[in-house]
Amino acid sequence: MAKAKAVRKEAKQPKVDVAPGTPDRYPLPELATLPDDIRERILVVQEKSGFVPNVFLKLARRPAEFRAFFAYYDALMLKEGALSKAEREMIVVATSALNNCLYCVVAHGAILRIYQKDALIADQIATNYRKAPLPARQRAMLDFACKVAQSSAAIDDEDHSLLQAHGFDSEAAWDIAAIAAFFALSNRIANFSGMMPNEEFYAMGRTPPSQASRAAR
Amino acid sequence: MAKAKAVRKEAKQPKVDVAPGTPDRYPLPELATLPDDIRERILVVQEKSGFVPNVFLKLARRPAEFRAFFAYYDALMLKEGALSKAEREMIVVATSALNNCLYCVVAHGAILRIYQKDALIADQIATNYRKAPLPARQRAMLDFACKVAQSSAAIDDEDHSLLQAHGFDSEAAWDIAAIAAFFALSNRIANFSGMMPNEEFYAMGRTPPSQASRAAR
Amino acid sequence: MAKAKAVRKEAKQPKVDVAPGTPDRYPLPELATLPDDIRERILVVQEKSGFVPNVFLKLARRPAEFRAFFAYYDALMLKEGALSKAEREMIVVATSALNNCLYCVVAHGAILRIYQKDALIADQIATNYRKAPLPARQRAMLDFACKVAQSSAAIDDEDHSLLQAHGFDSEAAWDIAAIAAFFALSNRIANFSGMMPNEEFYAMGRTPPSQASRAAR
Amino acid sequence: MAKAKAVRKEAKQPKVDVAPGTPDRYPLPELATLPDDIRERILVVQEKSGFVPNVFLKLARRPAEFRAFFAYYDALMLKEGALSKAEREMIVVATSALNNCLYCVVAHGAILRIYQKDALIADQIATNYRKAPLPARQRAMLDFACKVAQSSAAIDDEDHSLLQAHGFDSEAAWDIAAIAAFFALSNRIANFSGMMPNEEFYAMGRTPPSQASRAAR
Amino acid sequence: MAKAKAVRKEAKQPKVDVAPGTPDRYPLPELATLPDDIRERILVVQEKSGFVPNVFLKLARRPAEFRAFFAYYDALMLKEGALSKAEREMIVVATSALNNCLYCVVAHGAILRIYQKDALIADQIATNYRKAPLPARQRAMLDFACKVAQSSAAIDDEDHSLLQAHGFDSEAAWDIAAIAAFFALSNRIANFSGMMPNEEFYAMGRTPPSQASRAAR
Amino acid sequence: MAKAKAVRKEAKQPKVDVAPGTPDRYPLPELATLPDDIRERILVVQEKSGFVPNVFLKLARRPAEFRAFFAYYDALMLKEGALSKAEREMIVVATSALNNCLYCVVAHGAILRIYQKDALIADQIATNYRKAPLPARQRAMLDFACKVAQSSAAIDDEDHSLLQAHGFDSEAAWDIAAIAAFFALSNRIANFSGMMPNEEFYAMGRTPPSQASRAAR
Repeated sequence: MAKAKAVRKEAKQPKVDVAPGTPDRYPLPELATLPDDIRERILVVQEKSGFVPNVFLKLARRPAEFRAFFAYYDALMLKEGALSKAEREMIVVATSALNNCLYCVVAHGAILRIYQKDALIADQIATNYRKAPLPARQRAMLDFACKVAQSSAAIDDEDHSLLQAHGFDSEAAWDIAAIAAFFALSNRIANFSGMMPNEEFYAMGRTPPSQASRAAR
Repeated sequence: MAKAKAVRKEAKQPKVDVAPGTPDRYPLPELATLPDDIRERILVVQEKSGFVPNVFLKLARRPAEFRAFFAYYDALMLKEGALSKAEREMIVVATSALNNCLYCVVAHGAILRIYQKDALIADQIATNYRKAPLPARQRAMLDFACKVAQSSAAIDDEDHSLLQAHGFDSEAAWDIAAIAAFFALSNRIANFSGMMPNEEFYAMGRTPPSQASRAAR
Repeated sequence: MAKAKAVRKEAKQPKVDVAPGTPDRYPLPELATLPDDIRERILVVQEKSGFVPNVFLKLARRPAEFRAFFAYYDALMLKEGALSKAEREMIVVATSALNNCLYCVVAHGAILRIYQKDALIADQIATNYRKAPLPARQRAMLDFACKVAQSSAAIDDEDHSLLQAHGFDSEAAWDIAAIAAFFALSNRIANFSGMMPNEEFYAMGRTPPSQASRAAR
Repeated sequence: MAKAKAVRKEAKQPKVDVAPGTPDRYPLPELATLPDDIRERILVVQEKSGFVPNVFLKLARRPAEFRAFFAYYDALMLKEGALSKAEREMIVVATSALNNCLYCVVAHGAILRIYQKDALIADQIATNYRKAPLPARQRAMLDFACKVAQSSAAIDDEDHSLLQAHGFDSEAAWDIAAIAAFFALSNRIANFSGMMPNEEFYAMGRTPPSQASRAAR
Repeated sequence: MAKAKAVRKEAKQPKVDVAPGTPDRYPLPELATLPDDIRERILVVQEKSGFVPNVFLKLARRPAEFRAFFAYYDALMLKEGALSKAEREMIVVATSALNNCLYCVVAHGAILRIYQKDALIADQIATNYRKAPLPARQRAMLDFACKVAQSSAAIDDEDHSLLQAHGFDSEAAWDIAAIAAFFALSNRIANFSGMMPNEEFYAMGRTPPSQASRAAR
Repeated sequence: MAKAKAVRKEAKQPKVDVAPGTPDRYPLPELATLPDDIRERILVVQEKSGFVPNVFLKLARRPAEFRAFFAYYDALMLKEGALSKAEREMIVVATSALNNCLYCVVAHGAILRIYQKDALIADQIATNYRKAPLPARQRAMLDFACKVAQSSAAIDDEDHSLLQAHGFDSEAAWDIAAIAAFFALSNRIANFSGMMPNEEFYAMGRTPPSQASRAAR
């Protein structure tokens, strides 16, 4: 059955969206050539988003790494916990900006705008999170995440105490740090491999909901 | 007459757009309290753009600095020369991102999108100009501008030769360097004074022209 | 049967080796409390190494992250490819030293000494890989890995060309970069969580093989 | 009359002092070729100082930039306010040293010695202002100015509070920051254009006033 | 008599241990060619250690520098004072690691292990002294030493007060700083001259005393 | 006799010049309390220079360190060799400026002006040696010295080849590096101990010889 479904979906393949850009050292593979489980995951994403984010196709050339990467991603970004989904995306955007990762800043900037229902927040956090109009708790969260991203060897008890003072317990601290650490990996993969964000991400979530719903009427 | 005009315009003042944000150490002044020439310039901008960019109101509290700042700005950004208007904005966005200047990245990102007729270019240059799909000439231009922004004392003949190899003569080199230098000033003013970009800038120029004109039909 | 085996092994648990150190924000869990698959993997490692490296117990508190982490690790460090096992460990040691990661420098330093059959190589690479007596190919490999670790956004065609000049094709470049990227993650986890290397690692592989075999006679 | 005066002064032109130095990409223009207002300003400076500081001739090749630059300079350096003239020059010397700007360190070091009536202060502030024998108020002023020069994006309420604790209100903070910002511009212009300080500046103000007046007797 | 002794020792010269490594710009001199006092000192060291540390032979090519270097070394490392011998070696290892000095990290790491009777301490301090299980007093000592090594111009009263709070008076502060300063010199000499640590150092002191004495029984 | 001489000189002691400055953690000792050899050296310097440079008095509190320091200094700065005396002072000034060492920049700046018979050279090299009008050979010398000062671990064959291309052999390279290394020590001692330059140094050598001799007529 999985196979039948895949075949049906493959008919849609022309819609798979691949960002143009610099000549590609690691060209995106054809969907048909991928292992079933990977193709399935990609088709699910396409169904849900309307396009395939390039990170899926870029990593698919290495199935074992693909599976581990997204298992890790799901473990950190989808689980229940002390951090809201928007807060996790704030961490991704702030730390990816420190690493000048075009893919992650643009793609996760889009997701952050949607979760936070705020058209401005992603550009603010990417450029200088200290100027974003955030409550003290989220500012402390990003201070900690950015220290993990930039100088993790210097993290000490004082950093953990600052987090606790804003209501983050040890497990929440792990969540923050682990997301910053995972995107330290992710940013480097995107940077060295020339991964370009899909065009769709740039504009996504920029229309404030009120305006969008008004437009939808 | 100037006064009469000003009065008429002041009726529009409720439309003057002020970004919300962190509590303001340097509150924006009332239009009515400003010297005539400064109010005139602000009203012209408002007429043209539909809103008053915050930089005008923020600097207006210091009339002599306001006049000098915009005279310098005009001298570098409006004059004829070897650089296109879009290229000048590229320099602004690239160097302002190095200085983490939220105001300039967002405001000049908008202007760059419009001049370049490219909805993606500003986010690409702000995050990592090396990944933007630019011709070699513009890449060399931004390499030089970023060196002026970050380590101008190390600029030497080799840097000038690299520019020349891409067709920039000494006067064009001055143009590039002077824009980077002027925004070294501008970024620092915006950063220390807590200048926030107007909301309008974030979305401006993000709809590709073809799509926009189609929408306009 | 898996359960029976686990029970038998648990009798050995007092031998599980836990590094002493700073008071622990994230105490190592009891083997008995862990999911079966994780306990199994840990027991296999203990059987093979004679002790349980702390990274297994530290991460075990988060089963989903544990599984993804080691799946990624296996995908990069155990697969066939252009890089020898010793070369992969060189990358780990060089980049982990840049991040001042005590756990990874000490644990992977041990593994490197064993694979390379060289008692000195790990300290040399950790302190300054440029002074280690390495062939030009491995020096180029570490230059690339360290650039991925420290300034991945600046990696460009020239870096890839340098690798190619030493016989590394695009897939080998991916291997190098992906290992550096994975340990960017790993170093940050170890650093923020206070992961201490097991005592066993410090001395492992320091007796040159000839001497060791002589001692064994 | 302005013209007549200019002609008379031009007879003095051989005395216009131009620093020797590296071959010049941007040669200093002839006074006679300059617009009247710019030539007038230069002649006034020459009359007052006995020579023409190179910054005037270097920038004169670009009249619009010249006018804006000196209008900004006058607005910040000549106006009344909370900072003494010597304090403004301290800011210039400290921040220009951070940018390794030979022209500004030497030229404004001279002016600082004269205003402060202290033959040692400029070298102390240029080399390490923390070692200069300054009162706490001026030390705080330079800490703030240097943060504007080097990491303006990180300036926050705490920095402003430190200033206030030493008696600087918001307007004085603006003065300090704006001078640091203006010389961020000025240093970059001098650095990229190869502007060399006039020889006169090096020795100026180095004879302590008492000694100088004794010599004058 | 000195000569006779030297001759006798020279018979042992084949045992003089010279680290292999990169082709040497500054080859180690023959003992026989050295001035008497220098040869004597080297023979004494060889007698005591069983081999000649390369630093002695490397510097011996410049007798006046040799004599001054070791006079300074003795003045700082052998004298009585507030710091234990192990603490002095901690300072050497921590600051030499900041300078990526292979010779000093390996050679003084060995000495530190022996003085401290701790097989792990040197690798911990070299990789990240903040993670080493040190009492607060020694942590403060290393914080100060590392600031002297990296940014001595920023040392101020607060740094001295922190030391005093841990029981270090002004003379002890001088001891700490002078050792860090002397190894700033030593590290640079070793780095530029390609000085390689003798193989003996790598393993020295790695067998914990209890185990070693057990083995000796 | 030495004693008699000392007594005679001590009568001059009121002339011993001590720089004012920040409250002193390490007060300068009385000449009479110093060991004979150290007092003798200080008196010789005073006789020759007309004052006692503070470095002599500051270090005299630690006789063994004093003797080693000046033996090293003499070995590097006074010996014959490929570098002129002025070139050695250029290295001192350039590297001491990188370390923001007020004492060494001011004191050795004075000596450099005198040896080079150039009133401008010291300020140029201290602020930005790349802008000083130096021949290519001296520029290469300073590039090497500054790399030793700042990132000695990265020095490699290419750096040595660049020196050779300008006529510096291996021994000259050692001279350059050893001076940079010695002042790495010296700068740190001066910085942490609050050593202030004597007032005499600031103005010394600033009158060009021709002018001075004219004045002397």
